[in-house]
Amino acid sequence: MYRINENYLNLQGSYLFSTIGRKVSAFQTANPDVPVIRLGIGDVTQPLPPSVITALHKAVDEMASAETFRGYAPDLGYEFLRSAIADNDYKARGCDISADEIFVSDGAKCDSGNIQEIFSDDCRIAVCDPVYPVYVDSNVMAGRTGLFDPAAGNYSRVIYLPCTADNDFVAELPSEVPDIIYLCFPNNPTGAAITRERLQTWVDYANKNGSLIIYDAAYEAYIADETLPHSIYECDGAETCAIELRSFSKNAGFTGLRLGFTVVPKALTCGDVSLNSLWARRHGTKYNGAPYIVQRAGEACYSEAGKAEIRELVGYYMENARLIREGLTAMGYTAYGGVNAPYIWLKTPDDMKSWDFFDYLLEKAHVVGTPGSGFGAHGEGYFRLTAFGTHENTRAALDRIRTL
Amino acid sequence: MYRINENYLNLQGSYLFSTIGRKVSAFQTANPDVPVIRLGIGDVTQPLPPSVITALHKAVDEMASAETFRGYAPDLGYEFLRSAIADNDYKARGCDISADEIFVSDGAKCDSGNIQEIFSDDCRIAVCDPVYPVYVDSNVMAGRTGLFDPAAGNYSRVIYLPCTADNDFVAELPSEVPDIIYLCFPNNPTGAAITRERLQTWVDYANKNGSLIIYDAAYEAYIADETLPHSIYECDGAETCAIELRSFSKNAGFTGLRLGFTVVPKALTCGDVSLNSLWARRHGTKYNGAPYIVQRAGEACYSEAGKAEIRELVGYYMENARLIREGLTAMGYTAYGGVNAPYIWLKTPDDMKSWDFFDYLLEKAHVVGTPGSGFGAHGEGYFRLTAFGTHENTRAALDRIRTL
Repeated sequence: MYRINENYLNLQGSYLFSTIGRKVSAFQTANPDVPVIRLGIGDVTQPLPPSVITALHKAVDEMASAETFRGYAPDLGYEFLRSAIADNDYKARGCDISADEIFVSDGAKCDSGNIQEIFSDDCRIAVCDPVYPVYVDSNVMAGRTGLFDPAAGNYSRVIYLPCTADNDFVAELPSEVPDIIYLCFPNNPTGAAITRERLQTWVDYANKNGSLIIYDAAYEAYIADETLPHSIYECDGAETCAIELRSFSKNAGFTGLRLGFTVVPKALTCGDVSLNSLWARRHGTKYNGAPYIVQRAGEACYSEAGKAEIRELVGYYMENARLIREGLTAMGYTAYGGVNAPYIWLKTPDDMKSWDFFDYLLEKAHVVGTPGSGFGAHGEGYFRLTAFGTHENTRAALDRIRTL
Repeated sequence: MYRINENYLNLQGSYLFSTIGRKVSAFQTANPDVPVIRLGIGDVTQPLPPSVITALHKAVDEMASAETFRGYAPDLGYEFLRSAIADNDYKARGCDISADEIFVSDGAKCDSGNIQEIFSDDCRIAVCDPVYPVYVDSNVMAGRTGLFDPAAGNYSRVIYLPCTADNDFVAELPSEVPDIIYLCFPNNPTGAAITRERLQTWVDYANKNGSLIIYDAAYEAYIADETLPHSIYECDGAETCAIELRSFSKNAGFTGLRLGFTVVPKALTCGDVSLNSLWARRHGTKYNGAPYIVQRAGEACYSEAGKAEIRELVGYYMENARLIREGLTAMGYTAYGGVNAPYIWLKTPDDMKSWDFFDYLLEKAHVVGTPGSGFGAHGEGYFRLTAFGTHENTRAALDRIRTL
């Protein structure tokens, strides 16, 4: 008699964004004529940049002819894309990362969920609190987190790193040494950024204690402050303690196209085992490469035209971030983030619970956001709004909130 | 100090097709002027069907405009594709499978590697021998297989089901009851097909013994004999014991486009836990949907024009299968498969070892095939050729083999 992976039963409720989706659907069913504005899930709204569209059409045409048709992609990604990434995202910023340390994938969500597979099931993980749910849930599924304590809102074996207004939403070094540390900057959900100096303390800590950092840099394109690091490899010694995740979703609008990559430096070894080789083996066995046409679309993001178009796209969303942050502040809300990140993290009024504020905003203003408590215990009393709407909807949402 | 998943160290060598790739590269580097014909890895060579190309261009255009742009896809796939699959692949064949039992993915390789995650780590698996390596390797990574015994060429906890000429390459029911049984028909690598009656005995066995069948039907489009089942759900009771994997790679040529799906019936429960819900949770947490444009391409495969184009494509490759099977037989080889499957499974001449025959064929005929022993101990002394080449290359390969 076969048995299921019982760790799944230790997951709390459904995936956060599925729950939001269901609540919004229920509201829309009950109120079919009420237009809802969605500033909840971090999905983009603007079309793909022209350079990307051109590259897609061209690649589709290649697939129509036997001479230029492409079948299975190389497991780890096409050389043309891996080289463009190495040159533009790393070498141009002084990071010594080469094409064979880059693994192309169908997105940072998949990579951030799958990366834990190459580590032992008894590793203890540390996460920021609040945190993107996939880091925790994928480790729950693997049995690393211990049981959930409903009173504390925590898993017993996870080391939570509180991110609060007191520490500018940048976690302090933990008192207990974790095996694996998840960091995400610019941060989802708080919109906080990290300085190079502060990130260097994490790298030094990891190297000293034999911890591994999984650094999610999916939002690096939103960094406005030129002194902030875009990659963890801008810190000395990161190549011996850190894996970095990147995405094309939020900079180039690939949420529906699916492309991302993971950097596993060759210098990253555990004893005499190369993590680069382990991840290559994982990719080679359980993955079959991102679509050729999508990899060509990714390559187009690194052309001069593509870069300019992406800057414009990021600028469009950052104008929303400014509108939301300044608008909410003018209304008397306390709002964080939105300067180097596309997320605004606001304190709920009158100490409302996050889900209560979610329901209140949905019912009264017909605006969808994300309850902070969905990201962890320290997110309670906070609420996330995203800058990924249209200007029109963003302004309309603020007008509605203003009337509450 | 973090630790790696030591199960990875229990994997044998590199992934089969990576090894072949390296051997061919080495030969090509040493012999840059020798044209090599590849009938090894099961990659297609013909361009995407016109209906698919049209659908792709149209969907790309939609992504270029804010009004029609699509961001994150539904986790489990767009309704338009799931319905087309349910109607055409299942309801049309009398199988009671509905859209919400279908999970769209980026390919059957990923699904066949990931599906084991929802089961307990102590489940014992059974595989046919020879077998597609991903089933075993993904379970090695999860720690289910026990240690590898080099003398036997087997993992200690895996139940191997010998597939030999004596049983027409269709495994007999095992004497020890496995928890999870992997079956693949039409078979990769042997090209064998299974009758409905024989498949029914497996379904009955699984239901009686509480085993789960993972049924890989990636090659169902190649079935020529109309009496053979295309889906395991053509058997009575399969909905309570079987998950089915499907692919668009081999019928519609999507190897470089990436699209597949998994069927998890709602009637499939383990105790009171729904496997459909477990897989939905896995998909929702670690996956972010197949690209919109690729799902539209998948939908086009079910249009009348698309179906006709796919029949033509399958016919093209099956003509190669016929050429290879008949050609080799005329040369005195013993060849199996190639009638309801795009693979020909041939006995090596003079009891040569599979890898010796691989090297011999590469060096003397400059033809690449796949050593049978790479698929398991009972594949030793066999060799796989695929029908996915061009007619020209297939004929040329046979001419070269004839001169040996």
